[in-house]
Amino acid sequence: VPLGPGAHDLIHFSLVVAGFALLAHFLRTWHSTGEVSARYRPAVLASLAVTGVAFLSYVYLVLEFDQGYDLREGVYQPNAEALNTLVPRYMDWAVTVPLLMVEFLAVSAVVGAAARRTRFTLVGLAFLMILTGFIGAAVQEDGTSRTALIAWGVVSSAFYAALHVVLIRVLRRSRGAMGAQAYTSYRNATILLLSVWGWYPIAYALQVWFGGQWWTVTIQVGFSAADIAAKVGFGALIHKVAKLRTAEEV
Amino acid sequence: VPLGPGAHDLIHFSLVVAGFALLAHFLRTWHSTGEVSARYRPAVLASLAVTGVAFLSYVYLVLEFDQGYDLREGVYQPNAEALNTLVPRYMDWAVTVPLLMVEFLAVSAVVGAAARRTRFTLVGLAFLMILTGFIGAAVQEDGTSRTALIAWGVVSSAFYAALHVVLIRVLRRSRGAMGAQAYTSYRNATILLLSVWGWYPIAYALQVWFGGQWWTVTIQVGFSAADIAAKVGFGALIHKVAKLRTAEEV
Ligand SMILES: CC1=C(/C=C/C(C)=C/C=C/C(C)=C/C=O)C(C)(C)CCC1
Ligand SMILES: CC1=C(/C=C/C(C)=C/C=C/C(C)=C/C=O)C(C)(C)CCC1
Repeated sequence: VPLGPGAHDLIHFSLVVAGFALLAHFLRTWHSTGEVSARYRPAVLASLAVTGVAFLSYVYLVLEFDQGYDLREGVYQPNAEALNTLVPRYMDWAVTVPLLMVEFLAVSAVVGAAARRTRFTLVGLAFLMILTGFIGAAVQEDGTSRTALIAWGVVSSAFYAALHVVLIRVLRRSRGAMGAQAYTSYRNATILLLSVWGWYPIAYALQVWFGGQWWTVTIQVGFSAADIAAKVGFGALIHKVAKLRTAEEV
Repeated sequence: VPLGPGAHDLIHFSLVVAGFALLAHFLRTWHSTGEVSARYRPAVLASLAVTGVAFLSYVYLVLEFDQGYDLREGVYQPNAEALNTLVPRYMDWAVTVPLLMVEFLAVSAVVGAAARRTRFTLVGLAFLMILTGFIGAAVQEDGTSRTALIAWGVVSSAFYAALHVVLIRVLRRSRGAMGAQAYTSYRNATILLLSVWGWYPIAYALQVWFGGQWWTVTIQVGFSAADIAAKVGFGALIHKVAKLRTAEEV
């Protein structure tokens, strides 16, 4: 889809701002792993890895976006590589969404063997959800088949639904086991994560049915905003839970 | 606007110097988060994130500036990408100005639920101020419309005015709650921040009414100087407040 300069610059803005926000959270987390006791450290380390990887992924996205469009007669024309402004996002997600699951679980009240089992389930489901979505969007019939897009979207959505069940079960089980303040933040983190997750399949479906430059803007800006909420906002809330639970222990 | 070599080199100088100053503050802060007690740590971490992000943003600005002009017959002619030497600044500001608000609030005497509410207000107003300015400068009618520039400038200025009110209220409320020396530095930090903030809307208005290479130089060099003052100078003063307040606690 060709983009006017305004649309182009707005997408560019959202990509760079998301990258900067991720970097800011990364730097903050780097220097505050010590605020949390050893038991909850894995949550903070997961957040560090998530935002580090995602920051780099946004650097890559910005470069691909710059290269994927050529300015001709005042309009940005996508060239042969323009698909690359959506596809690299899946590579980021394939690593960061499983890590977000680790981050989520590490501050819960699920421990020991049950935690190991749940972690395995969450990480596996998250990875398969992204992988199947990626196959529909880019691999099968080179990403040109609407049928493949829909079919793989349905498979991916099954993993998506299963993840919701497991996440909510973990939240429920944590209720009695932590202080009221920590639980409130933990619940807010879950609500935030699951609400912004709603955007990803919607955006996936939008590309099946809609075209035009402002849809492209909506999808790209939406992804950037959702990534900030799911990684930085969620990370800040989980960090808070980890700090409150650390304080409870003393 | 085509630039003579002297004008071009002066802008280039100011961009690189600002980048180096931000890096210097970043390195200093990186190694001095421990000077401040846990309570004021968020201020130092915010400053770390602000200067880290802004340093990277200046690296990006220098690259864009290099690419945006072609030297032909002894004059630097802007090419199709020359807008990019102003626009990336908004991307930096969209993240760093909200973080400067966090930094400001973290050493104030406002705590608990009131702090959470005020932080939310400050961060939201700061982000909206930058976003609306960006829409006027680059998105609506591709940044070519003088009416759009003025209209969005007015909207942005409303957020700007509201921010002043909130910041001054926080400063007032902190007066009795900290030592005289800490308060003096805190007041100086506020005065510094709000005075250099005056430059940004002036520069925005200048581009509506003035052209010519020396105006471009003024705007760019002015932004670089203002960014140094608002991030490094302000950061140093806030760091001092945090250290003094840490000492008071002992
Ligand atoms: C259900 C579904 C999807 C879900 C994707 C999700 C939920 C992605 C979450 C990404 C996050 C949270 C990134 C981190 O910031 C896909 C793969 C688009 C394919 C279509 C069906
Ligand atoms: C009022 C106003 C503006 C204010 C911008 C400000 C106040 C920016 C501050 C930036 C800082 C402090 C950067 C950090 O170094 C805009 C957006 C130019 C648009 C026109 C109206």
